[in-house]
Amino acid sequence: MVDTAARTDTSAAPATASADAPKANGKANGAVRPGGAPVVDVAALGRQLLGTWADVRVEARKRAAMPELQRIEGQSMAEHRERVLEQLKLLVEMGAVHKAFPKELGGQDDHGGNIAAFEELVIADPSLQIKSGVQWGLFGAAVLHLGTKFHHEKFLPAIMSLEVPGAFAMTEIGHGSDVASIATTATYDPETEEFVIHTPFRAAWKEFLGNAGLHGKHATVFAQLVTNGVNHGVHCFYVPIRDDEGEFLPGVGGQDDGLKGGLNGIDNGRLHFTNVRIPRENLLNRYGDVAPDGTYSSPIESPGRRFFTMLGTLVQGRVSLDGASTEASAMALAIAITYGNQRRQFTASSDTEEEVLLDYQRHQRRLLPRLATTYAQIFAHDEFLVKFDAVFSGKADTDDDRQDLETIAAALKPLSTWHALDTLQEAREACGGAGFIAENRLVGLRQDLDIYVTFEGDNNVLLQLVAKRLLTDFSAQFKNADAGAMARYVVAQTADRAYHGTGLRRLAQTIADFGSTARSVSELRDEETQRELLTDRVETMIAEIAGRLRDARKLPKADAAAAFNRNQNELIEAARAHGELLQWEAFTRGLAKTSDPGTKQVLTWVRDLFGLGLVEKHLAWYLVNGRLSPQRAQAVTAYIDRLIERLRPYAQDLVDAFGFEPAHLRATIASGIEQERQDEARAWFDAERRAGTLPVDEKTLKAKPKAKKKS
Amino acid sequence: MVDTAARTDTSAAPATASADAPKANGKANGAVRPGGAPVVDVAALGRQLLGTWADVRVEARKRAAMPELQRIEGQSMAEHRERVLEQLKLLVEMGAVHKAFPKELGGQDDHGGNIAAFEELVIADPSLQIKSGVQWGLFGAAVLHLGTKFHHEKFLPAIMSLEVPGAFAMTEIGHGSDVASIATTATYDPETEEFVIHTPFRAAWKEFLGNAGLHGKHATVFAQLVTNGVNHGVHCFYVPIRDDEGEFLPGVGGQDDGLKGGLNGIDNGRLHFTNVRIPRENLLNRYGDVAPDGTYSSPIESPGRRFFTMLGTLVQGRVSLDGASTEASAMALAIAITYGNQRRQFTASSDTEEEVLLDYQRHQRRLLPRLATTYAQIFAHDEFLVKFDAVFSGKADTDDDRQDLETIAAALKPLSTWHALDTLQEAREACGGAGFIAENRLVGLRQDLDIYVTFEGDNNVLLQLVAKRLLTDFSAQFKNADAGAMARYVVAQTADRAYHGTGLRRLAQTIADFGSTARSVSELRDEETQRELLTDRVETMIAEIAGRLRDARKLPKADAAAAFNRNQNELIEAARAHGELLQWEAFTRGLAKTSDPGTKQVLTWVRDLFGLGLVEKHLAWYLVNGRLSPQRAQAVTAYIDRLIERLRPYAQDLVDAFGFEPAHLRATIASGIEQERQDEARAWFDAERRAGTLPVDEKTLKAKPKAKKKS
Repeated sequence: MVDTAARTDTSAAPATASADAPKANGKANGAVRPGGAPVVDVAALGRQLLGTWADVRVEARKRAAMPELQRIEGQSMAEHRERVLEQLKLLVEMGAVHKAFPKELGGQDDHGGNIAAFEELVIADPSLQIKSGVQWGLFGAAVLHLGTKFHHEKFLPAIMSLEVPGAFAMTEIGHGSDVASIATTATYDPETEEFVIHTPFRAAWKEFLGNAGLHGKHATVFAQLVTNGVNHGVHCFYVPIRDDEGEFLPGVGGQDDGLKGGLNGIDNGRLHFTNVRIPRENLLNRYGDVAPDGTYSSPIESPGRRFFTMLGTLVQGRVSLDGASTEASAMALAIAITYGNQRRQFTASSDTEEEVLLDYQRHQRRLLPRLATTYAQIFAHDEFLVKFDAVFSGKADTDDDRQDLETIAAALKPLSTWHALDTLQEAREACGGAGFIAENRLVGLRQDLDIYVTFEGDNNVLLQLVAKRLLTDFSAQFKNADAGAMARYVVAQTADRAYHGTGLRRLAQTIADFGSTARSVSELRDEETQRELLTDRVETMIAEIAGRLRDARKLPKADAAAAFNRNQNELIEAARAHGELLQWEAFTRGLAKTSDPGTKQVLTWVRDLFGLGLVEKHLAWYLVNGRLSPQRAQAVTAYIDRLIERLRPYAQDLVDAFGFEPAHLRATIASGIEQERQDEARAWFDAERRAGTLPVDEKTLKAKPKAKKKS
Repeated sequence: MVDTAARTDTSAAPATASADAPKANGKANGAVRPGGAPVVDVAALGRQLLGTWADVRVEARKRAAMPELQRIEGQSMAEHRERVLEQLKLLVEMGAVHKAFPKELGGQDDHGGNIAAFEELVIADPSLQIKSGVQWGLFGAAVLHLGTKFHHEKFLPAIMSLEVPGAFAMTEIGHGSDVASIATTATYDPETEEFVIHTPFRAAWKEFLGNAGLHGKHATVFAQLVTNGVNHGVHCFYVPIRDDEGEFLPGVGGQDDGLKGGLNGIDNGRLHFTNVRIPRENLLNRYGDVAPDGTYSSPIESPGRRFFTMLGTLVQGRVSLDGASTEASAMALAIAITYGNQRRQFTASSDTEEEVLLDYQRHQRRLLPRLATTYAQIFAHDEFLVKFDAVFSGKADTDDDRQDLETIAAALKPLSTWHALDTLQEAREACGGAGFIAENRLVGLRQDLDIYVTFEGDNNVLLQLVAKRLLTDFSAQFKNADAGAMARYVVAQTADRAYHGTGLRRLAQTIADFGSTARSVSELRDEETQRELLTDRVETMIAEIAGRLRDARKLPKADAAAAFNRNQNELIEAARAHGELLQWEAFTRGLAKTSDPGTKQVLTWVRDLFGLGLVEKHLAWYLVNGRLSPQRAQAVTAYIDRLIERLRPYAQDLVDAFGFEPAHLRATIASGIEQERQDEARAWFDAERRAGTLPVDEKTLKAKPKAKKKS
């Protein structure tokens, strides 16, 4: 894929062959690497990576280092569930989980800080993170955001103190992603001024609810609000489900979901309701209310907008999954790179010394690009959290802000949750059999995070939402345009296709590039070139799909749906490209804030590796669409190879900057034990050699006459 | 990525829009699909897929359907280990596990059939498959293949009957992939005519051994054989490790590996030896022996070849992992496609009826290409097993045959084990939250199969072996060539690069193709075109790397290693391409044997989807190297989209043909329960509608005035 010229060309940049580059972990701060190579200020970089809520995270990590909050591998499901419940109580005692609640109730009205602290719990045990999330981020947050002062005062104190553990009963067996279609009903009875919560059939059982299997005493139940014969759509109700003995209340039933692929510290379960009556006041009535006589009212006239506003208050789940997944990816890489920097296997370049795993090109290719993506995600997540905080604190809370936040969440959460699974798996494989042992944590984290890709919004469904938003934005450009403008656009599109698509522009580029891989490399390093390549792809994909769907709106519903469906896969790919661009932009902004020159240089390589890695991943698109000539395309891969060689000596610094302590990683193989074993083995061989007791190798005996034969 | 022309072009083949194509599962056999569409003979296809050892597999699947041989989800590690041990005893009682052993000892000398039966155990519980594999496929097979008549008669009966459970002690903490470097020693003492087995340091502890944690009484221990001061390399020794009470014998120690990411029905552990003495006869001496006076002898003079011959007898592990992984992929797809064919979510094309998941393009794109790959693997595996049987039965057992078998194993095992993880994960995600519940089996299978990608040869290491073999074959072409031939080859390479690489040939193709996507589609369908594209890529990649490494042999060892390392990633990609080509060829040969015309038509689409899927995956390579014009590259994706639309109505037939019964799949969501729930919900809504008790939708009330406003 890469020609020799590109590989051996070093004129464009100083060679940093891994052979003579420094490999030791500098822990920098004034240290100078041999050969004038840049030095990373690990501590300063670490502070930058902690982001806007650095202090909160440092505090939260102290808690995550406490054994009593950590997972014990191998506990039974029942033991694990009880342990996590007890840990939730500890968190309450520590005052660790009330930041987002109102000051007047003992909270801090600090939404960003709350999420930052909450994300760090993943280090202790993802079950603890998610069970806390169920209690305070979903169940409590539904009361906080969908309820009003009455509910806050009446229900929140017991929720905050964990006196009332609760379930967030939205999803049903029959409807997960399509929340609007849930079938549980809440029918108002003006006679008694009560709502009747009812599950009409099996598919309407509430499903996968944390706290529903065992511990939940109340639930925030989403149901179709029916009053005076009209269905006003999905609303949320505060419903008691279990008595103090843990028995279901009359009319309430359920089922334990039992063992899952992970997160077994959480008691997920099903709930169903048979004409369960609750007081009218238990409707969380911020966005829709029913008067005693049954009259419905809402501050939001459009039922559609009302629905999305209510659901929008739940975006924090996606925010925190983005952060927690990124954290897990960072842990995986800290473990695998630390081990890969010590572990040796096969003698390749000498007869006696075995190679360090991370000196193998393939091993670098497996881990370093994922490290670059993790860095991009860290920067993107911090910006995302700042945006979230602005919206939820009311600092910047327009409809546009909320929509933007939703779109960012829908773009970033899929990418980071998938990346976590991919990275945990690659890290596990890179550690071989040791990666499969539970005590080295990679398999457990992966099992727990598996569900992150489909809960709080299935990743594919979320990306489709992003794509629809991009299409809407695109068509908004032409909203007020006359027919002439549209026609001109179409002509321009066609011309673009003819120009890019037939190889004409590419051919020109080929001629200009010919024999000059170096020049194209220097262009690829350019920030603007990367931005243009990534932006262009998103815009072009969306424009093309919009062009194809332009006439679909006029078609009958079934045909329009078929036309849309024929583009669904590409739409989702466009949304992914958009998310990747968001991450690249955030990384680039973060880079601009890095002041230490050595750190900035190395971080620039990491950013370039991320950016060009994206280009390489989608190389076929760039070639087909004439954005890159074959020569330049080859230069992308060649330059990535070179970046990886350059970054290799900094791999340990880059994972050390994540700031995880042994009490966070808790992986035996990342503890230095591998180095100790090798030192012991080396000392043994040296001693035997010195004593002359090492047997002669049969190969050596035979090799001598052979060598003679050859010459 | 795909232009409108390509998407809407249907002139090259009859349109089979999913809207009007039949979707019901035909269960074929004489049934006629509307519109003259081909009909799959599911039963006949099923028989073909069972392959050469169909009867053995049918028998083995009957056993796999027995609850007493199946996994119970949620058992503790201790319970699971005991259960699997008991299941092994049941297998002995059923006479299910002795096929590969000699007839004179009650076996059948049937090597292919043995593996076929063994693979099917994965359906019952992967722990059962692997623990059986440890006992009879590794521990027993080491005695069988590395020992001689004395050992067979003395040790095999108790191994076969499970009276002696045993560990296969090859891997050490310090050396997994690099077996030649293990450090355990077996030093011959002529005084007592004993070998002294010794573990010199911690890194030499035997590690990850099944049966070592708890149940193993003996072990086949691999150690450096030292006699008369010479190390003759790795040999295998039969060593007792535990007494009848399960206590370690003097000098033997160990450690339980504890909880793993999966396969927790197996008691993996560590072993170490402190000057443990065993009789001289306990050397498994087929390939190397020590006389009472300490004189070493071997039928294989070269220590290197001797080592690889000994290890080669263990190839059956890789064979069976290829088969079991493919089986697991098939199960995953049977579950996810059955569910995806019933589950509905969102109304897209009508106001009332929700869409079946598998009608979404993205859902099809996620599952159907993986189904095509699984089909390819099934055909490739059967050929692989035939080859294995020929070598192990002695029917075709030359050095070349053995080397070919090793290379095929090293190429196929990585692809199918990775594919299983990828497919199990995609299936799990495609089933949403339900996929995460243990009772639906996808998470458990994935956890168990995780280790398949790094045991019995780390996948990356195996692919590198394949690449080295390809490089050797390549250079063998020039072995006897004179300098002139080499020079001519170099010139030809350069010309090829100039011709392909600068876009000249591509441009010509572009002009010829322009405006004629249909024509390029019809070429892509052509078997020869696919073969040429896939073969060309392997050959070109290898030739290019060989060209780059040509001078490396003359360099000092460290520089040569560095040159090799700079190509390592691409080498491994070339090996993967080779494995993919093997799979495609096997699929194509299988297709030639399919006689029913309808089945053959559908299977041809599946094969094309597999072949063109590979081309699409590596599209950038084909573009950069001038093998495909941008137009033709677009046609690849467009044609894949069309193939997927065509195959969609056959998805259920294609997974039904795998022949799994409910007792095999044991996944609640694939049992039809989803359809029942939907029918119940639909009936409820119909009844409410008829009774006039369904509330009016607020949206409907508001939509009417709005619609007026618009017009």
